[in-house]
Amino acid sequence: MNLLLFKAADLLSPTRLCVDDQRLQHLLQVHRATVGDTVRVGEIHGEMGFGTIIELGPERAIIDFSLDCPAPDKLPVTLIVALPRPKMLRRILRSVAEFGVAELYLINSYRVEKSYWQSPVLSGDSIEECLLQGLAQSRDTMLPTVHLEKRFKPFVEDRLPALLEGRLGLVAHPSEHAPLPKAESRQPTVLAIGPEGGFIPYEVEHFRAAGMQQVTLGPRILRVENAISAILGRLLATQ
Amino acid sequence: MNLLLFKAADLLSPTRLCVDDQRLQHLLQVHRATVGDTVRVGEIHGEMGFGTIIELGPERAIIDFSLDCPAPDKLPVTLIVALPRPKMLRRILRSVAEFGVAELYLINSYRVEKSYWQSPVLSGDSIEECLLQGLAQSRDTMLPTVHLEKRFKPFVEDRLPALLEGRLGLVAHPSEHAPLPKAESRQPTVLAIGPEGGFIPYEVEHFRAAGMQQVTLGPRILRVENAISAILGRLLATQ
Repeated sequence: MNLLLFKAADLLSPTRLCVDDQRLQHLLQVHRATVGDTVRVGEIHGEMGFGTIIELGPERAIIDFSLDCPAPDKLPVTLIVALPRPKMLRRILRSVAEFGVAELYLINSYRVEKSYWQSPVLSGDSIEECLLQGLAQSRDTMLPTVHLEKRFKPFVEDRLPALLEGRLGLVAHPSEHAPLPKAESRQPTVLAIGPEGGFIPYEVEHFRAAGMQQVTLGPRILRVENAISAILGRLLATQ
Repeated sequence: MNLLLFKAADLLSPTRLCVDDQRLQHLLQVHRATVGDTVRVGEIHGEMGFGTIIELGPERAIIDFSLDCPAPDKLPVTLIVALPRPKMLRRILRSVAEFGVAELYLINSYRVEKSYWQSPVLSGDSIEECLLQGLAQSRDTMLPTVHLEKRFKPFVEDRLPALLEGRLGLVAHPSEHAPLPKAESRQPTVLAIGPEGGFIPYEVEHFRAAGMQQVTLGPRILRVENAISAILGRLLATQ
């Protein structure tokens, strides 16, 4: 936790907040904080700044703070990911927020197991919790938007074309295709990544018909989460 | 498992192998394989090819195979990582093998908890198991070399200079420093990544004195495993 994130419900006054949940545990056990310590704080969807711990005990911490710094820019990336298994989904949600992705679409695909759509990780609270962990890691306050698209064809045919307007569309798929192009600085990009085993040809064809280019990361087949980090790392580095 | 890896002990004859461990479970449960199916196989530290399942049951699978394809090139990267906590270490070992890193040094650093050096993950068998999972994911047979360096100063002062000969040395550290340079195609690189919380100034100074440049991935503080994937992704894409 490199940033203590709070929301209106945590406020005692406009410049004082109180935490009594896992954020308190983190202050006590990981930061080994004491009264008088300075901590970085950020208001969810708001600004960031510093706070001073004025009370700290096993039941709550009270922090006086002021905010004066905007959240960092988001990566100009819309990520489309075939719904992964729940354990990997948690890590991907954290990473998406951590890297500063603005928008995530979790979509269905032939190779997505139907049971994944029943996962409790997909509840709004659970998604938000994972995203907040990512934001707290990389010091950001702006939650990415997460969309669930349980039907492949309506998404790709009806909604994807609008998403692609003015953006570079790339579908990462292990193949003999062109390597991932060098990212242009701040070129808005829509990036689709398939499930374990990849998109099926029918799906790749639909992405191409919508205007996306097929690209590959090289001869190695990376796990979905590593492919995402590897590609986002390239985009990060051009910021 | 995109490649079934085997060693001499699995051979029934020079072109026939038998598996009865988690590789068998994977064939049965994930691949839902049947007799007659073709599977990709690779000999650890040897070539890759295809096999045909000639017997398959709950206790063993027998596969006839031929090898005709070399392992993919390694990334020309020597990675130096401050020893992470055991759970993250497992994922990093898998990723290092998956991305094709040739050599990994796990080193001590001020912010590495001493208990991490007692982790059972550091036993040779456990390291190899994690590396093999990464190789099986990305279809490679060459195990990376893993070195444990429990003392920071002797490593950086006595061994690092020789490692850096003819190579670009980079130490990734969140700061106001230069962004990660665009990787030159196949430029051999030594890359050091700190622990959670980063290297301390004394350590960064030692890396610089040894000839390494300090670079940053941007304003976001990434988890160690995401920083590794992000940087390796950049290097991958120039291959």
